[in-house]
Amino acid sequence: MKTIDTPNAFKRLQQDLAEFAKERDWDQFHNPKNLVMALNGEVGELNELFQWLTTEQSENFPAEKQEALAHELADIQLYLLRLAEKCHIDLEAACDRKMALNRAKYPVEKCFGKALKYNEL
Amino acid sequence: MKTIDTPNAFKRLQQDLAEFAKERDWDQFHNPKNLVMALNGEVGELNELFQWLTTEQSENFPAEKQEALAHELADIQLYLLRLAEKCHIDLEAACDRKMALNRAKYPVEKCFGKALKYNEL
Amino acid sequence: MKTIDTPNAFKRLQQDLAEFAKERDWDQFHNPKNLVMALNGEVGELNELFQWLTTEQSENFPAEKQEALAHELADIQLYLLRLAEKCHIDLEAACDRKMALNRAKYPVEKCFGKALKYNEL
Amino acid sequence: MKTIDTPNAFKRLQQDLAEFAKERDWDQFHNPKNLVMALNGEVGELNELFQWLTTEQSENFPAEKQEALAHELADIQLYLLRLAEKCHIDLEAACDRKMALNRAKYPVEKCFGKALKYNEL
Repeated sequence: MKTIDTPNAFKRLQQDLAEFAKERDWDQFHNPKNLVMALNGEVGELNELFQWLTTEQSENFPAEKQEALAHELADIQLYLLRLAEKCHIDLEAACDRKMALNRAKYPVEKCFGKALKYNEL
Repeated sequence: MKTIDTPNAFKRLQQDLAEFAKERDWDQFHNPKNLVMALNGEVGELNELFQWLTTEQSENFPAEKQEALAHELADIQLYLLRLAEKCHIDLEAACDRKMALNRAKYPVEKCFGKALKYNEL
Repeated sequence: MKTIDTPNAFKRLQQDLAEFAKERDWDQFHNPKNLVMALNGEVGELNELFQWLTTEQSENFPAEKQEALAHELADIQLYLLRLAEKCHIDLEAACDRKMALNRAKYPVEKCFGKALKYNEL
Repeated sequence: MKTIDTPNAFKRLQQDLAEFAKERDWDQFHNPKNLVMALNGEVGELNELFQWLTTEQSENFPAEKQEALAHELADIQLYLLRLAEKCHIDLEAACDRKMALNRAKYPVEKCFGKALKYNEL
């Protein structure tokens, strides 16, 4: 349940991250170029959790690694939020615009059941 | 402003994505392993926007490419949300747990102004 | 066995790349940090070719996309060679050292048939 | 000039890798899709070495981390070679074809001193 005053999930986490960085004097490192590379690093760690799993195993991810997986997804999310803020992009609004674009690029009747790029449809 | 009934940003977008995939019969492609690879693809496109920019240029990103950048960040966000759902992970809660962990791993007095990994502190 | 006149594959391609960059005055962009990001971009494109394929489809890659795949692998190889040169690393020798290390880290009797990291063995 | 007996660098390393995998019964894991993900993991580790470095620091990489960097480049190279073999692609020949293509796509007079994509020239 959210109250009227509750900042949304994205903004709340961005505020936490901004405070976290400020306390540690880390804004000096958090330029967009560096943050993209940091994001790449976390995405690499995510891949390491899945690389040798079959598709079926990926759908039934080992319970003992579930929290490690949650941490990797969170690491990516946190850097992505930080990057969006440093790039002056409202990430939630950008997602809504992209969803609208995707609906236009991928009409149901053309791409039903097909994993193609829009320019291959 | 949010009302009591408003699902938060993460969950709202995940519902949109689930509906988008269902309409197109794309759940068959959206297993975690495939979604990690799709995320990698989007992260690669993000890198292409920054690869030849200096740090300073990355901080003053070209205005004419700002919407393209917003789209890339959104693409990553959307696949990340989709992946979290398929992995049964509450992404917002995972971020909060990871923030708490990071505060413990990176005590202010030890890492003030230093870009080190926690095991190098 | 190498003869005196044979430049090896790595060095020959690195010479081609150096000449290519010099002719276009591109050395100014080819610092290691930028080259890592450019490599990420190409790796992202490689992922896009595989993301929706099943394992079996990845083993029987569509013939009509085979040359596109060859180009992506080449793009990664070329940036990797360029990066190694700019980092003053002899890539072939580094591979030999890493192979020796891997043989020590992954003893046959401990890891036969198991896809584990050395610290999980 | 190559002599009959000299396997080139790429092929020699691919033979080493094939033997290494066979001894450990790891061919079962080395399908192209998995190998792409393993490559992503190594590329992520490479990013971690560079993410907080300035461009200048990336050009004067810390000597004490130079061997760690060599290992990361080697890890990427080794997975790339393995992937090329499993995809039935002659990586060296693919590089030569891509270099020829790049020369055509990026004519010196059009792109001298400019870091643009060929479709932006």
